[in-house]
Amino acid sequence: MTFETPDLMAKIDRLGAVAVEIGVNLQPGQELIVNAPVEAVPLVRAIATHAYRAGAADVLVHFNDQELSRIQLREGAEAIFDHAPGWRYDGLQRALSEGAAMLSVTGTDPNLLAGCDPARKARTQKAHAVAGRGIRSLIGAFDVNWSIVPFANPAWAAAMFPDMGVAESVARLWAAIFQATRVDGADPVANWQGHVATLHARAKRLNELRCAKLHFRGPGTDLHVGLVEGHIWHGGSAKTSKGIVCLPNMPTEEVFTMPHRARVDGVVRATKPLSHNGTLMKGIEVRFEAGRIVQAKAEAGEEAFRNLIGTDEGAAHLGEVALVPDASPISQSGLLFLNTLFDENAASHIAIGRALGINAPGGDIEKIAGANDSLIHVDWMIGSSEIDVDGILADGAVHPLMRAGAFVIDERCRV
Amino acid sequence: MTFETPDLMAKIDRLGAVAVEIGVNLQPGQELIVNAPVEAVPLVRAIATHAYRAGAADVLVHFNDQELSRIQLREGAEAIFDHAPGWRYDGLQRALSEGAAMLSVTGTDPNLLAGCDPARKARTQKAHAVAGRGIRSLIGAFDVNWSIVPFANPAWAAAMFPDMGVAESVARLWAAIFQATRVDGADPVANWQGHVATLHARAKRLNELRCAKLHFRGPGTDLHVGLVEGHIWHGGSAKTSKGIVCLPNMPTEEVFTMPHRARVDGVVRATKPLSHNGTLMKGIEVRFEAGRIVQAKAEAGEEAFRNLIGTDEGAAHLGEVALVPDASPISQSGLLFLNTLFDENAASHIAIGRALGINAPGGDIEKIAGANDSLIHVDWMIGSSEIDVDGILADGAVHPLMRAGAFVIDERCRV
Repeated sequence: MTFETPDLMAKIDRLGAVAVEIGVNLQPGQELIVNAPVEAVPLVRAIATHAYRAGAADVLVHFNDQELSRIQLREGAEAIFDHAPGWRYDGLQRALSEGAAMLSVTGTDPNLLAGCDPARKARTQKAHAVAGRGIRSLIGAFDVNWSIVPFANPAWAAAMFPDMGVAESVARLWAAIFQATRVDGADPVANWQGHVATLHARAKRLNELRCAKLHFRGPGTDLHVGLVEGHIWHGGSAKTSKGIVCLPNMPTEEVFTMPHRARVDGVVRATKPLSHNGTLMKGIEVRFEAGRIVQAKAEAGEEAFRNLIGTDEGAAHLGEVALVPDASPISQSGLLFLNTLFDENAASHIAIGRALGINAPGGDIEKIAGANDSLIHVDWMIGSSEIDVDGILADGAVHPLMRAGAFVIDERCRV
Repeated sequence: MTFETPDLMAKIDRLGAVAVEIGVNLQPGQELIVNAPVEAVPLVRAIATHAYRAGAADVLVHFNDQELSRIQLREGAEAIFDHAPGWRYDGLQRALSEGAAMLSVTGTDPNLLAGCDPARKARTQKAHAVAGRGIRSLIGAFDVNWSIVPFANPAWAAAMFPDMGVAESVARLWAAIFQATRVDGADPVANWQGHVATLHARAKRLNELRCAKLHFRGPGTDLHVGLVEGHIWHGGSAKTSKGIVCLPNMPTEEVFTMPHRARVDGVVRATKPLSHNGTLMKGIEVRFEAGRIVQAKAEAGEEAFRNLIGTDEGAAHLGEVALVPDASPISQSGLLFLNTLFDENAASHIAIGRALGINAPGGDIEKIAGANDSLIHVDWMIGSSEIDVDGILADGAVHPLMRAGAFVIDERCRV
């Protein structure tokens, strides 16, 4: 709370407004559930202010203190790590089922759980993933209008800029956040509308192409990703089952669709580190056969990555593939954010784990042939300026989609 | 978070330990639910550490930011103030029913809601009181082991010491808290054991006396408080229905029992201001007839007090009467804490609203003749060094209980 100049507070207020009005697109009479780190109090107050002005019935904030996770892992009795508080998840699921919207604030310390026992971490993550299954299902099927926005937590800033003082690193991170979330310009709303139109046009072109699979090529990568029959590309905003248009990620630069869980083959090398639940995994290299990860190694965090893909059967298969141009502002910033919300929007990526219902007709992944299911969904960056992507049609015809990290289909669809 | 010296952190850690071990007396395998202001993060981390060491299955923290209440009252649409999130109260009630313990951290700004619309405040407090009825019932009947402990929130310290700088006022408040919660001495546990034994002996003597009513006399006060048949005096620790001995308030100096809802007559003048839900009420004067408040005025906050006693039928009747010697360390500190947890332990008091089940046989206030019920329970200070209290037996015999604020029954029961 130490660095709050009037200028910064004004921009935080604007970020709160954009999060409520464009991110979740809160409707009058809706409850808004906010998940946020305790450090994000100034942004949460801005969110609450704009939510009540938009007619919120209530703003219910679940503040979390990440240090409590570390205390639990360090001090907890061995028996407790398969436990999750069912009443808390059930309550949240009921709220969402009854019509609440959800806004999550991200900004945790990427290194927070470094040094904690990996087996305990894996057990507790699994227990919470099981308890949260119903909520994830509502979110993934867009039965709820939801969004994720960032907050420049000092611990996050310190991990990104280890050589700077606290004030300077936080200021640098805020500047990057305001740029990426398009809050810096004269008219954030118009800015977002133009950007979303570009993503919609790109998704439309890919939907017209009807690729049977994608082929990623580059250093350490030669990967075929088969897509499910009738797959749907999405990007930018999404419409919920109740007809509310929300923007689930701010920032967002991706178009994404659903891989076939049994039709992924070849090798792939991560182009950026993956920060997941407080552990940093670097230099991941993986081999897929018939959709499944059969070999995996990493320069750092290999045990955590193995625990992750061992969560359940679906954790070693893909649930999402996404294309992001290397020209995206986040990539061009040259910053490694150590945070999926940003880094996934700097590069094309794949996600191990659960597929998203909106990426296929019907929306119920239990009924879609080839849709992957899992307790987890973890995005993982494989794109860069050295990566080419082709679309391969059912008849074997090859359509270049990206060259050296740039879209080559955009000239036909630019708006 | 600005004033954390190693010495302060060591004492906060000790307060956390006492809160877990003596306050809630957490049992291995129990979940611990913690309610706390966001400012109390250091104490919450200490609580979590000691809770996990005591075998907690989980520590679930509900952080609240009081500023969000003010934002809601200021910005919310007129229709929303009769709303409370049922799913949240139901979830908490389920957790407590399933065996969780609860620890609340108090320390809010006594003036927080000053200037907010009293009608909106009254409506939202009532909506939340209705939604929380089941939880209050579990708490009041001691089906749950629970406790309340303080945290020196800077806004609280500023209200207590308006002429001091922030650092000095917070340091003064912490010193008062550590003294009142007996964390300062060499052996906090032994200290608490001795103090609780004194309170137990005092309650035992009062239970032997079997007073039909109490008579308070002093400046502006001439009040008869009839007690229910079979009333039980309690003080210090309490045993839950599951046999766990907890200390529900830290600090605590009171012995308390159950008034008869229809047998309170006379006038009473508050001896200290009452800070309730962010509003300060000063100079309250009230007349009771046949148990009911029939006249009420106040020098400040009169409208809030009228709203409070108008909450429901039971809000204008008494649910508790408590005796506290003027020699209590909190009274002797000479400080006005503007916080019920402290001020009620500086002075004898009455509470308007709901009775506590433990103060009569059976414990179910719906079945106890003369037990008051209400959505509220608000303690309100009427004792001082100028107040005498007599116990009047069923045959009219008068037993002096307190003279000039001091117990005159203790010589027979001192341990």
